[in-house]
Amino acid sequence: MPFSQPWVLMTLLAGIVSVGVAIWLYRWVNRQDAGSERAQEVASWIRNGARSYLRRLYMALTLVAVALGIIIAVVFSFDIEHLGLEGGVEVDPSRGVTMAVAFVVGAVCSAIAGYMGMSVAVSANVRSATAAGESINRAFQVAFYAGSVMGLAMVGLAVVGMSAIYLLTGDPEIVLGFSFGASALALLAKAGGGIYTKTADIAADLVGKVELGIPEDDPRNPAVVADNVGDNVGDVAGMGADIFDSYVASTVAAMLLGASFFARGSLDERYVTLPLVLCGLGVLASLIGIRFVRVGEDGKPGRALNSGTIITCVAFAVLAAALVLLGGYNLGVLWATLAGLVTGVVIGFTSDYYTSAEFHPVFETARVSGSGAAINIITGFSYGLISIVPSIAGIVVAMLLSFYLAELSGIGGVYGVGISAVGMLAVSGMIVSSDAYGPIVDNARGIAEMAGMSQEVIDTTDVLDAAGNTAKAITKGFAISAAALTVLALFAAYAEVVGARGVELVISLRQPVVVAGVLLGAATPPLFSALTMLSVTRNAFDMIAEIRRQFDERPGILAGTETPDYDACVGLAAQGALSSLVIPAFLAIVLPVLVGVILGPEALGGFLGGSIFTGVIFALLMSNAGGLWDNAKKFIESGEYGGPGSDAHKASVVGDTVGDPFKDTAGPSLNTLITVMSLVASLFAPVVAAFHLF
Amino acid sequence: MPFSQPWVLMTLLAGIVSVGVAIWLYRWVNRQDAGSERAQEVASWIRNGARSYLRRLYMALTLVAVALGIIIAVVFSFDIEHLGLEGGVEVDPSRGVTMAVAFVVGAVCSAIAGYMGMSVAVSANVRSATAAGESINRAFQVAFYAGSVMGLAMVGLAVVGMSAIYLLTGDPEIVLGFSFGASALALLAKAGGGIYTKTADIAADLVGKVELGIPEDDPRNPAVVADNVGDNVGDVAGMGADIFDSYVASTVAAMLLGASFFARGSLDERYVTLPLVLCGLGVLASLIGIRFVRVGEDGKPGRALNSGTIITCVAFAVLAAALVLLGGYNLGVLWATLAGLVTGVVIGFTSDYYTSAEFHPVFETARVSGSGAAINIITGFSYGLISIVPSIAGIVVAMLLSFYLAELSGIGGVYGVGISAVGMLAVSGMIVSSDAYGPIVDNARGIAEMAGMSQEVIDTTDVLDAAGNTAKAITKGFAISAAALTVLALFAAYAEVVGARGVELVISLRQPVVVAGVLLGAATPPLFSALTMLSVTRNAFDMIAEIRRQFDERPGILAGTETPDYDACVGLAAQGALSSLVIPAFLAIVLPVLVGVILGPEALGGFLGGSIFTGVIFALLMSNAGGLWDNAKKFIESGEYGGPGSDAHKASVVGDTVGDPFKDTAGPSLNTLITVMSLVASLFAPVVAAFHLF
Repeated sequence: MPFSQPWVLMTLLAGIVSVGVAIWLYRWVNRQDAGSERAQEVASWIRNGARSYLRRLYMALTLVAVALGIIIAVVFSFDIEHLGLEGGVEVDPSRGVTMAVAFVVGAVCSAIAGYMGMSVAVSANVRSATAAGESINRAFQVAFYAGSVMGLAMVGLAVVGMSAIYLLTGDPEIVLGFSFGASALALLAKAGGGIYTKTADIAADLVGKVELGIPEDDPRNPAVVADNVGDNVGDVAGMGADIFDSYVASTVAAMLLGASFFARGSLDERYVTLPLVLCGLGVLASLIGIRFVRVGEDGKPGRALNSGTIITCVAFAVLAAALVLLGGYNLGVLWATLAGLVTGVVIGFTSDYYTSAEFHPVFETARVSGSGAAINIITGFSYGLISIVPSIAGIVVAMLLSFYLAELSGIGGVYGVGISAVGMLAVSGMIVSSDAYGPIVDNARGIAEMAGMSQEVIDTTDVLDAAGNTAKAITKGFAISAAALTVLALFAAYAEVVGARGVELVISLRQPVVVAGVLLGAATPPLFSALTMLSVTRNAFDMIAEIRRQFDERPGILAGTETPDYDACVGLAAQGALSSLVIPAFLAIVLPVLVGVILGPEALGGFLGGSIFTGVIFALLMSNAGGLWDNAKKFIESGEYGGPGSDAHKASVVGDTVGDPFKDTAGPSLNTLITVMSLVASLFAPVVAAFHLF
Repeated sequence: MPFSQPWVLMTLLAGIVSVGVAIWLYRWVNRQDAGSERAQEVASWIRNGARSYLRRLYMALTLVAVALGIIIAVVFSFDIEHLGLEGGVEVDPSRGVTMAVAFVVGAVCSAIAGYMGMSVAVSANVRSATAAGESINRAFQVAFYAGSVMGLAMVGLAVVGMSAIYLLTGDPEIVLGFSFGASALALLAKAGGGIYTKTADIAADLVGKVELGIPEDDPRNPAVVADNVGDNVGDVAGMGADIFDSYVASTVAAMLLGASFFARGSLDERYVTLPLVLCGLGVLASLIGIRFVRVGEDGKPGRALNSGTIITCVAFAVLAAALVLLGGYNLGVLWATLAGLVTGVVIGFTSDYYTSAEFHPVFETARVSGSGAAINIITGFSYGLISIVPSIAGIVVAMLLSFYLAELSGIGGVYGVGISAVGMLAVSGMIVSSDAYGPIVDNARGIAEMAGMSQEVIDTTDVLDAAGNTAKAITKGFAISAAALTVLALFAAYAEVVGARGVELVISLRQPVVVAGVLLGAATPPLFSALTMLSVTRNAFDMIAEIRRQFDERPGILAGTETPDYDACVGLAAQGALSSLVIPAFLAIVLPVLVGVILGPEALGGFLGGSIFTGVIFALLMSNAGGLWDNAKKFIESGEYGGPGSDAHKASVVGDTVGDPFKDTAGPSLNTLITVMSLVASLFAPVVAAFHLF
């Protein structure tokens, strides 16, 4: 047993503790007062809608997972490494099956984390609204602990899965299979959820607000439940799945890099498992941070969330320093970890600048809205483009710092980049917890309104909601930069994996095939975004037809005497979203393999590079512009520049509607897309390399 | 005298003939009937406005050219190659001055071509409108020959300038100075013109159509002249300058590659001048093609333009084949030339698919417009994203084909890529001629309306205008793909130029500094786009204030008894546009040098690569989405989906207004931006390499 095994066992333990705490909090939330009968009825619509959506989603995903699992089992049963080189082809089904099992376990862990998060969210929303009648502190606690269920379940399951697989197989490439499972599921859940949520949102708004003039969240609207379910699907399950996949992928990338350096003899075996151990410390730090999140007497939930994040980061830094110093690791590991951690937090907080109503961009966009929707959109889009620059600069700084600090310390610069991505993502438990808090309080506010609670309760939920929006903006910036650093590490890992097969990979921009790969890769994220956004509008038209059908056939609905068939809308949106995923999934999974097989491993390297460059840029553009338009609208609704009902307001509503699929459908899926493509490339690198060697 | 000199002399001669024909056509157009007094008065407003704009523009540009010229003279007086290597620094002012002179001559040639094009356009518009009263054939001839003045002057001056400099100095790097002059001026003229034209357009519309409800092109609107001048500025001078700079840059890139291969002994000296000779043949082919453009009895101007393009391409292919076969050149040259030529034309025609009302994307965008502006924008934006794919695929095919065909023929793959860019751009004379035709007939239509000509004349100008729009769409696709291939060749040339300084450049994506460079480079085109678009809205607000001031102070304007102060609006828009250029110009010229000096030549290579990737992608997105929204609006205005005044129409107007700065301000400048940055990198490569060697 290698001497780093005890550390991995402790990491496994930390993961189990995290899952245990998540389960405990899950029960705690469910024990809270579920409120009045009316509130429970409203909440039950959303809960049933969410279950109905999840059932459809997971049925479809099971099919995909089984199909991909079989393909993986078959492909990896061949001894690809020596394919064609020594005449015959050796077949070893055990490796194929192990890889397939790892893949399926990864997918299942991601699904369980998403399911737990969703199901606690839909039971916490009404409980938080009810608690808001008592005190803001209590309402905050319910919502935040419910969010923590998601955060802790996610990191816990990830750490348990990776540690267990590594302990059983000792092979980081099998852990790569686990990561691919998690990411493939995340991509489908996230892109599907993104299409679903905006389909429901746009359809509900167009028929409800625009055609009939009934308010948002009116229970007479058949799409209202689908819309509310969508908030949970996109924001809770989606963001969780997104960070889950970066979290696992960054750890695997760093492990693969460590293994490659170990194989060359430049690092010892402990550095292979170090990324896992850092994750374990991050889990402990998150548990500490979550423990300290508390709204004081002054009732400032935003400050409580921020201080929780800061405590977690400090705790993680201290634990990482202790590990490095006491464990006798090279100091370069610490510098790389800190470079990642600090940059992640800084980028997160600065991305707030472009989307918060306290700063110039939102302010200016709101100001020009009086001149019409087009000016609002041009201005918001332009600030979205500018918002790319600071995040890119942050990613560049983190990458160069961690590379050169690691290089100078003698642990290999590329390994340092991998560790910095792990350092950035290690605090994910806390980040996801405060992010998942957002949609819960948003839903609580909706339920308070739909169930006719008092104005005081609604005001309290408003305060909670505002804090949630800031947390959300921070998480988005964090998620994108973390994904960027992760895929850069994966990119390096891909080159190492290919290199280990005897093809020394020079991905030079002076080679035309590499440039061809980069150009094709660069065109993929825009194409993916376009396909998902067009699905939204197409599905929304189908759903509008269904809403109109219900109103026509059952006049009692609009009169308020009949309950609409909420489930029909949920089902339609879910079905539409899932069937829209076929081509995007093909792009993500099959395209990299095709490029590698046809144009060779160098071109595939270029392809990955190109997809990363534009993937990050479009993700930042779409998320930030979308958030900016949303807040410009809210700023005008707060009474500025003419207030509600003014021309400026109408213009800002158009901007917000454009921003919806930007920030909730296309933008956030791009992180996952580039992660999946990079994982596919690394996983199938032996196949690509084998073709190249013929 | 090297034996390729006679060929270069003949090329010089072809250029002189081209300029001569341009001057002859210029006079011919001016001899045409200028129409009624009223028509002449209206035309004189636009002419005077255009002169006023050009005076301001060229005054500002002269200052920039002189300043840059001095910097170049100083920098290139030092013997950079041996700086710091052998202790002392040798100073040789003659090389510095030669380079500065080449730079200034390049800028002046670009300016003269733009000036000729603009000034013939503003005198041809009224003459074409007048001729439309006689026959469509005559009106077409006036407009097309006026467009040819621009096309022929442009290629003629380019060829004359490059040949003369090469004959005098025998040094392609001095020709690079000429190219940089042309491109720097093109960037400022194009970005400035793009900001100017949309400032005027948006301000005129917002006050005129929206606030006062007076029609477009109403002479009571003080901004109407600025708006009409803007059409010429952006479309005639802008597109001309754009293709001028790609045209020169592609030739220089191929010459530099040829020189580098010659220095290594793998190609003989004739291949250095071959790109120039191909340009000369392209000029002859364009003269032949232009001769054959004629509207038949059936009055189909679109078909006339297309057949002119096809005749030019065939003539060029035949001439190039004759040159290669009779001149004893390697056949690989012919394959590379044809690969570029064919791909350019194919991309041009297919880009029509995404922007023409005859196909699905425009049709679908128009259809969904009934559901509001936001859906119109999401749909159009999505198709814009999809439109990136075929053009990128075309560029990839052209690059790989020309590379491998050249490689297999033994002339060096990279040189083949350079030649294919030259092959694509060689027919620019014809392409620019039919492009410049568009805004002339557009203006003719405006004048016909403003001067109260008969409905028959207006209908004729409508037919002419529709053909112009198709030509414009084709040119945009062509211009972007040509620029892409050109910058790829320039990118290779940059590596060769650095390589010649003893730094063997490996621009590998596995080096973090290269990735850092790529990320920073990739963020630059979006930033540039944002800055120019924000300038448009900012300047439009200033101009709106000026329009309102005129209406307030002089009530006779709105009553129609007083002529507004058109020049005040022209001046304001020009001033605003020029002062908005400071930061974008800094990005283009200083940033590459900074990246090279601070992060090294590999990072600069990455930076160029990154800027090319996103530059091409955003240029395609913005140009195509903008064109699509424009045509979706026109499609609805033709009576479909509710027709003018319907909700769908209102939504499509918002989309069109968003698209205006996309397609006319930000999109088209990006080609020039990436060309300028690549030229700066190649030009200052010795400086960067010298820093690196310390």
